[in-house]
Amino acid sequence: MIIGKSYTRVDAYDKATGRTKYTEDLCDKHALVAKIKHSNVAHAIVKSVDISEAEKIPGVVKVLTCFDAPEYLFPTAGHPWSTEESHQDICDRNVLTKHVRYYGDDVAAVVAEDEVAAKRAIEAIKVEYEVLPFVLDVQEAMKDGAPQIHEKYKNNVLAHTQIHKGNYEEAIKEPGLIKIDKWYNTQTVQHCHIENFICYAWEEGGRIHVTSSTQIPHVTRRCVAQALGVDWGRVRVVKPYIGGGFGNKQDALYEPLCAWLTTQVGGRLVKLDCQREETFANNRVRHAIRYHFISWVKPDGTLVARKVECFSNQGAYASHGHAICAKGLGSFPQLYPCENFEGDGWTVFTNRQVGGAMRGYGMPQATFAIEAHTEDICTELGLDPIAYRRKTVMPVGYVDAFSKNELYSDTFNQCLDAGMKYIDFERKREAYKNQTGDIRRGIGVSLLWYNTAVWPIALETSSCRMVMNQDGSIQLQVGETEIGQGADTAFSQMAAETLGIPFEKVHIVSCQDTDVTPFGTGAYASRQTYAAGMGIRGCAEAFKAHILDVAYRYTRMQSYLMDIVDGNIIRKTDGRVLMTLGELALTVLYDREHNEHLTMEKTAQLKTNAYSFGCCFAEVEVDIPMCQVKLLNIINVHDAGTLINPALAEAQVHGGMSMGIGYGLSEKMLYDAKTGKLLNGNLLDYKLSTMMDHPHLEAQFVENPEPTSAYGTKGLGEPPVNPVASAIRNAILNATGVAFDELPMRPHLLYEKFSQAGFFQD
Amino acid sequence: MIIGKSYTRVDAYDKATGRTKYTEDLCDKHALVAKIKHSNVAHAIVKSVDISEAEKIPGVVKVLTCFDAPEYLFPTAGHPWSTEESHQDICDRNVLTKHVRYYGDDVAAVVAEDEVAAKRAIEAIKVEYEVLPFVLDVQEAMKDGAPQIHEKYKNNVLAHTQIHKGNYEEAIKEPGLIKIDKWYNTQTVQHCHIENFICYAWEEGGRIHVTSSTQIPHVTRRCVAQALGVDWGRVRVVKPYIGGGFGNKQDALYEPLCAWLTTQVGGRLVKLDCQREETFANNRVRHAIRYHFISWVKPDGTLVARKVECFSNQGAYASHGHAICAKGLGSFPQLYPCENFEGDGWTVFTNRQVGGAMRGYGMPQATFAIEAHTEDICTELGLDPIAYRRKTVMPVGYVDAFSKNELYSDTFNQCLDAGMKYIDFERKREAYKNQTGDIRRGIGVSLLWYNTAVWPIALETSSCRMVMNQDGSIQLQVGETEIGQGADTAFSQMAAETLGIPFEKVHIVSCQDTDVTPFGTGAYASRQTYAAGMGIRGCAEAFKAHILDVAYRYTRMQSYLMDIVDGNIIRKTDGRVLMTLGELALTVLYDREHNEHLTMEKTAQLKTNAYSFGCCFAEVEVDIPMCQVKLLNIINVHDAGTLINPALAEAQVHGGMSMGIGYGLSEKMLYDAKTGKLLNGNLLDYKLSTMMDHPHLEAQFVENPEPTSAYGTKGLGEPPVNPVASAIRNAILNATGVAFDELPMRPHLLYEKFSQAGFFQD
Repeated sequence: MIIGKSYTRVDAYDKATGRTKYTEDLCDKHALVAKIKHSNVAHAIVKSVDISEAEKIPGVVKVLTCFDAPEYLFPTAGHPWSTEESHQDICDRNVLTKHVRYYGDDVAAVVAEDEVAAKRAIEAIKVEYEVLPFVLDVQEAMKDGAPQIHEKYKNNVLAHTQIHKGNYEEAIKEPGLIKIDKWYNTQTVQHCHIENFICYAWEEGGRIHVTSSTQIPHVTRRCVAQALGVDWGRVRVVKPYIGGGFGNKQDALYEPLCAWLTTQVGGRLVKLDCQREETFANNRVRHAIRYHFISWVKPDGTLVARKVECFSNQGAYASHGHAICAKGLGSFPQLYPCENFEGDGWTVFTNRQVGGAMRGYGMPQATFAIEAHTEDICTELGLDPIAYRRKTVMPVGYVDAFSKNELYSDTFNQCLDAGMKYIDFERKREAYKNQTGDIRRGIGVSLLWYNTAVWPIALETSSCRMVMNQDGSIQLQVGETEIGQGADTAFSQMAAETLGIPFEKVHIVSCQDTDVTPFGTGAYASRQTYAAGMGIRGCAEAFKAHILDVAYRYTRMQSYLMDIVDGNIIRKTDGRVLMTLGELALTVLYDREHNEHLTMEKTAQLKTNAYSFGCCFAEVEVDIPMCQVKLLNIINVHDAGTLINPALAEAQVHGGMSMGIGYGLSEKMLYDAKTGKLLNGNLLDYKLSTMMDHPHLEAQFVENPEPTSAYGTKGLGEPPVNPVASAIRNAILNATGVAFDELPMRPHLLYEKFSQAGFFQD
Repeated sequence: MIIGKSYTRVDAYDKATGRTKYTEDLCDKHALVAKIKHSNVAHAIVKSVDISEAEKIPGVVKVLTCFDAPEYLFPTAGHPWSTEESHQDICDRNVLTKHVRYYGDDVAAVVAEDEVAAKRAIEAIKVEYEVLPFVLDVQEAMKDGAPQIHEKYKNNVLAHTQIHKGNYEEAIKEPGLIKIDKWYNTQTVQHCHIENFICYAWEEGGRIHVTSSTQIPHVTRRCVAQALGVDWGRVRVVKPYIGGGFGNKQDALYEPLCAWLTTQVGGRLVKLDCQREETFANNRVRHAIRYHFISWVKPDGTLVARKVECFSNQGAYASHGHAICAKGLGSFPQLYPCENFEGDGWTVFTNRQVGGAMRGYGMPQATFAIEAHTEDICTELGLDPIAYRRKTVMPVGYVDAFSKNELYSDTFNQCLDAGMKYIDFERKREAYKNQTGDIRRGIGVSLLWYNTAVWPIALETSSCRMVMNQDGSIQLQVGETEIGQGADTAFSQMAAETLGIPFEKVHIVSCQDTDVTPFGTGAYASRQTYAAGMGIRGCAEAFKAHILDVAYRYTRMQSYLMDIVDGNIIRKTDGRVLMTLGELALTVLYDREHNEHLTMEKTAQLKTNAYSFGCCFAEVEVDIPMCQVKLLNIINVHDAGTLINPALAEAQVHGGMSMGIGYGLSEKMLYDAKTGKLLNGNLLDYKLSTMMDHPHLEAQFVENPEPTSAYGTKGLGEPPVNPVASAIRNAILNATGVAFDELPMRPHLLYEKFSQAGFFQD
């Protein structure tokens, strides 16, 4: 068995020794440098742009403005295309814009011989604006009379979806129900991947070539073509190793602009390298979503009716749009089924920077809200939060009517049991009762629900190609992408497992090149092992069958009598090694009778997806006078089905927990109410959670193999971040009795809430 | 019809504008620089190498000597591998050698931070030799007591083959036969491609990556693996655009050394860039071959018996070895069939630089000898050279017993007719009779015979992959390589033709990467259009069939009712366009019912090859006192079957004719008899033929479609060079009555021969 072993990452040695080549390493040092002129107003019409001074600066090759930009509108979201127009992403951007919609919007660009000239030219560009009123708050933006950000969206509502189940209005009439009515607020955060966004582009062979730090090369290619109005086949996108993405690079961020710029300078190589400040201010962010929950429960906690409203702050452009808000909304009636449910989700344009994909895709927000709310119900009713969740959560055998996903095993109880044991839940809960001092401890829990992959909302497909070498090793090509998460290693294990060859014999082609890489939609939705796994297994099984058919010529054994084990073709009936795979590959490639290069390529389409589950337990120590939270203990327990590589799975969970801790306690993007300008867009002022802020991060797993999955696996990339903030929030509630309904729970907020709670009265 | 049109080269614009990226352009500017310490003796044993001074030079990273080099012997020839040991190329080299076998052999190497440090270190290395006697002449090397160059080859004979047909000894007893007994000598020349040999290598992912200016990426990968003793799959070779090869880059020249060097400096990027002088002195050369012809003819010219001896000067290492000598030897009884034939070919090691592949692969030498000899027979017997050739040459319907090749059409007469007409042969031959002045004119002819591709001597195979984009365009991948000859354009035309799409819709992936490019053995033997054509057509036909099967789902038409024409899926019965290929590709890729990435990959094996034919007519003006030849007029007429792209075919012929003119009149590598050192290894002293030396080069074609060929085409890359020197030689003979049996016919030689002829007696 190769699946389930903690092989060292295929790229570990190269990354540790600095051999790994990222986009910047691959770009010719003589590339022209592109810089963007960002607006310094939040909402305006560009009246004119004066580039005369900029053009005079030595080293400037070209200055281009929104008045030069192609009129093609394009989308940026990393979603598969749909041939149905209603399912296509919203085309609402030009590569440069005449209508500034947020502070930092892209108005002009400079291409210069070097960075200094480019920066000087950017400063020398003079833009004259017709300034418009702007709106930053999501509910303000929905009001009549609010500034109109995109022409065709009334009240700035990009989309509004509703879920109706049962009869809410009738149900709440039942006597004796307790109404819990609360608002929960999440903040805007940024991904903070180590490698800023970077891409470079040039023309060759009548085509536009783009190398980019992207999660979605095949999708980006299409977005670039749309933006430039060229045939899709005229664009090629190459994705090298990337230093993290977390969803920010699941957008076509600046590839369309860079691709257009090269066409404006005679096809010369143009590099567009975001500074950290630009990554903060001009890339995507996690949506700030505001939730309103009204739950009607019996005194024993039985959930009779629930109404939820979600207000998602989209910012200036559609990007992933409503999908993020809708994913959270859709989760509520699944995680805690309720017979009478009414849900409304609004995704609303504002004059803020653009919300896009970020690890969790709406679920960190939704999980914070639902798990805070669930805790609030328990607190209100005096119920045990574990017992209440066990009773109320999605039951074994639950089938979602839309996705047909099923809960196959008693995973919630298993995860809760493991987490309780590790954190010593019962004893500590008891011990932390009735604390009165300045320093108090508490313990909290949060469940986690996540839907792997995107079927049936969108197409799910993964293609795979295998190329055999003369030594019996293979190259493995998939369209799904290594973005630091270890996908290449998992893919290699899968291929080795199914093909029957040693792990070391799989050479993964890490770099995707849309010219030659089988089509795959990229890294998102925690779909890598689930979706690519099906592509890999389908291809490997077909390849193995073909290899055994070919082996018949040399072994005289019927293919069904043979198998491939550990790189050898064996006879199943007595286990004899008939020849090595290397011998076969060599022989058939150079066979003068019947020669063949052994390769295989297959597309797998998926018509399933899978639930991932888990929980988080957090233990905190709250210093009330100092308004500080110290995280003492934290554990995530995950059921992601079979683990392909436990060590990598653990690393994924560690990363997600870290992100969740920052989300819960420190990270928040601050916008100036007067200008809309981002105030803390750098790693000094933005309080990114780091190892220094963490206790030991405990990751445990419950492995219920997913029956619909090629290797029993399901999503684990995003889920770990989701339950962390709510578990910490519930621990603080447990410690102090104060319920935080807003993130992050920074000292500022603690001071405010503790003051309201009367802690500082004397 | 797309075949047969002179489309502009797919890379024309990029090459003309400097966008095309060659190996040097792609190599990171911070690469370490490797330089080689070449021996300054022709034959010696290295006793010791003192690197102490070299290591002290600032910037030197590593100095390595023959005593550090791996003991693995490896071959360098660009031949397909054979699983039969007797058919494998000779392994006679190490990456650095302790046994110096020619002046310039590779004894040590330096890796340094920059070129200056590397060069200084090379000079600082002190090598102590045990000097041995050396031999430069091929027949001297065969003598008993000659210096032994490789241990196991007696009398330095690498190989000796014989052809026996009929009974020579009996046949020559026939009374009345005239014996023509002559020696012909060819010289050593170099390829002089514009781009010198260059490669770079690094380690990543536990594998060795090599980017190289090579004609044979898949073969080079194997040679590197052999040299380093690693699994073949652990080596990856990438081939960018290359600036010419002409066969020199059909050897693994220095990739094995460069690959080894990176492993000695921790996998850092190492560049090995040959200077022009090294390309001259340390790369491959065209074999100097000496021929001895004895022909026994009747007074009417009937060829009764013939004996040929060929002595091929191999130089120090085997490289392509005996194949080159044998190809020429094998041609003689085919071109001019003779019932009683005895042929001997010897390939012999000498202490000269290594003979390898060069455009024509032994046939420029053999054609010079046979066509000079044929002319000498005509002169001796007073026969018309055209009529004699028409009568004596391979007849229509001729089948070679070994290759099964057949002469399908009356091509020789057609080619001769075209050439005679263009050059006004009859009238000029008459006019040039009885000249007596100092300046005399003459006209000469030479036939041309060439065997396309290498079956049945070696494996012939070509794999192809096609990847469809959403706009109905495709990427085309083949293992055969663009080396400046225009193969990419021809391949694109073929794919477009068979698939039924516009030429512009084919995006050829020019760069071969052994990790992902379908296996092909590379560019040699004029096999590109013939061999790769079969790979392309096989793949395209399978792809088209698959596309039509898929189209059924959307058009409801059975696949046999449809065709693909000009990028549209049409109904054959009424010609209606049912959908565009782009619509189909888009629809099926994103089909939520049945999605698929449309691709196809196929291996074609060849069990045929094909004769290429033609002739050359040259007209010269000889200035006897000045010993100068002025080429007035020259025409090559070729039957290469169907022309894929007439303009590119013409360009091929022009290049070959230019090379042939240099071969005939000016080019020769001179070796110092006292040291074995190359004396004129630079473009100043080596008289490379250029446009300045040429009259208009007329290229004409006779198109008899080759029945065994996918597109009716056969070899045209090499043939044009072959008949040129002999046609010029025969023209000089016609002008002056002096037969030159040696190349090149430089003023030095003319003076010697004209003196012997008594021209300067008064």
